[in-house]
Amino acid sequence: MQKLQDTLDSIKPLDKASMEGAQRRLDSLTKPLGSLGRLESIARQVAGIMADPVPQIRGKVIVLMAGDHGVVEEGITAYPQEVTVQMVANFLNGGAAINVLARQVGAGIALVDIGVNGDVPRGPGLRSLKVSRGTRNFLKGPAMTREEAVKALETGITVACEEIEAGADLIATGDMGIGNTTASSALLAAFSNCPPEQVVGRGTGIDDEGLKRKVEVVARALGIHRPNPSDPLGTLANLGGLEIAGLAGVILGAASRRRPVVVDGFISGAAALAACAIKPRVRDYLIPSHLSAESGHKAMMAALGLEPVIVLDMRLGEGTGAALAMFLVESSLRLMREMATFEGAGVSTALE
Amino acid sequence: MQKLQDTLDSIKPLDKASMEGAQRRLDSLTKPLGSLGRLESIARQVAGIMADPVPQIRGKVIVLMAGDHGVVEEGITAYPQEVTVQMVANFLNGGAAINVLARQVGAGIALVDIGVNGDVPRGPGLRSLKVSRGTRNFLKGPAMTREEAVKALETGITVACEEIEAGADLIATGDMGIGNTTASSALLAAFSNCPPEQVVGRGTGIDDEGLKRKVEVVARALGIHRPNPSDPLGTLANLGGLEIAGLAGVILGAASRRRPVVVDGFISGAAALAACAIKPRVRDYLIPSHLSAESGHKAMMAALGLEPVIVLDMRLGEGTGAALAMFLVESSLRLMREMATFEGAGVSTALE
Repeated sequence: MQKLQDTLDSIKPLDKASMEGAQRRLDSLTKPLGSLGRLESIARQVAGIMADPVPQIRGKVIVLMAGDHGVVEEGITAYPQEVTVQMVANFLNGGAAINVLARQVGAGIALVDIGVNGDVPRGPGLRSLKVSRGTRNFLKGPAMTREEAVKALETGITVACEEIEAGADLIATGDMGIGNTTASSALLAAFSNCPPEQVVGRGTGIDDEGLKRKVEVVARALGIHRPNPSDPLGTLANLGGLEIAGLAGVILGAASRRRPVVVDGFISGAAALAACAIKPRVRDYLIPSHLSAESGHKAMMAALGLEPVIVLDMRLGEGTGAALAMFLVESSLRLMREMATFEGAGVSTALE
Repeated sequence: MQKLQDTLDSIKPLDKASMEGAQRRLDSLTKPLGSLGRLESIARQVAGIMADPVPQIRGKVIVLMAGDHGVVEEGITAYPQEVTVQMVANFLNGGAAINVLARQVGAGIALVDIGVNGDVPRGPGLRSLKVSRGTRNFLKGPAMTREEAVKALETGITVACEEIEAGADLIATGDMGIGNTTASSALLAAFSNCPPEQVVGRGTGIDDEGLKRKVEVVARALGIHRPNPSDPLGTLANLGGLEIAGLAGVILGAASRRRPVVVDGFISGAAALAACAIKPRVRDYLIPSHLSAESGHKAMMAALGLEPVIVLDMRLGEGTGAALAMFLVESSLRLMREMATFEGAGVSTALE
């Protein structure tokens, strides 16, 4: 608990002077004022986060956390639970979508078994940091104890800080865990007060009957656990997942070290909601990525106050949307650093 | 005219067998069916365009065409006309936004002076292919003669084919030309029947009074030239621009050689509208990029039947949005080529 508390205490506001410096630089570049749109606001935000008017990204990492979910026994998924273990093996072998996109964008992957219910093949690319072998079915009690939730948060903090230590300046979140859209929907309902039918979607592709069951499961979970707005940690423990809590920790850890976090889709968004509920200021450190095809994602982005920049109807998780958005973040910083100024290039400014 | 006609005649439908092969491959990869969303449809489209179920992109090029517009004498721009020349110099020096983004995405720039009203500094990176020194004010007659419009189209075809010959497999369009949102708005109104107030926006940042003037200019132009739906070439000549016609030629030329074209924002969209009006089938060769902040762009994309994949409120032109989207196109193809299959990776498929 001490590590979590210390981390929360060290999350500071963005640096206003650096943001103003970034804006002055952006306004001096050979383009109509403001014409790079949100690339400019992202560059300004990263300047504020990193407290550097012209920040530079050295390394990039996608923190990919895998965990299982006891609620799968309610029949709310399209794939069997063993797929979590199988996909971790696929990540280690470099064959999953996120491996391809990480190579494409030049990012590393920090793969963490934070709670897979099975034995994951060991490999040099995997951190074995199991908090437990999956969560419990939250219709039969809390998904995690408070202690487990804190341990998962602190695991995320540790991983983020280690990666930053090793040179990562831009962090993306990614998830793997059969059943985790159900836990994420429950968290979204709890943190946003949206009704279950609005926050529950088809996940990886459940049919109509399964969807109905999933809505009922989330509704029952909310009835059982009665989320208390003044106890976000309790809500995260009751309804969340180990990888979700871990990613919330990654967000908090990155913010405490003044690094921007690119938030992937629905599961990462649930982690961001939890992180913001625990420490509202962390929202300033978040950069949105894509709008997921998962039906509750729009409400989730609204609850976070984030507007996605990529619309590709993806619904895969793993950090795939965030990996693509990393390219846009890097583009925004390169533009700020490398473009010529009006004065330097001898280009006329706007007519009076 | 012969080159144009030959090009139109050699634009064929997409290759269905390659698209089916691409779909089979996509469905075999370790991800829920369809979960890569529009990255999958882009990969399938490129497969159909290139007639190869697993196409590969060798080189990438942004064709950046610069031209001036006689209609600037009506006071419809925020910047003076000399900025076109100055920005061409900036492109040659590598200091503009598109230079930065081209480096970031690993694309070349094919810079063409197709109609700048001024003397452009010569440089190894510039093709001097002036059709004329800017268009004429379309309130005083046709912007171009039919012959000039054909020459500009054929110039675009030639440039596209040369770039493909030299190894470019993915083509993006980009523009520079003070006054060209006015010409593009007029073309949009002509090709889509939208009223002038719906298609005219602030361009690089004109004030309220200028905006009102710009709407009137477009309305008057439509009244003078009365676009005839059965004569798209006439409409392009009357209302268009040299760089717009040139980019329409790039699109037609690329399609005739079975290469995908990533369409940038408002000006490139006007070129795409003209190309599709001349040869409707060319639409299948277009890949959308970003949704521009220019107010008519949504209507333009609807008229083209394209849905942008990036939303950054950019309004800069030069091919900047298309350059960013090139990264997504490459990602889609790499995913198709490099991801493991369910069988190869030993991952369970969906539950029955």
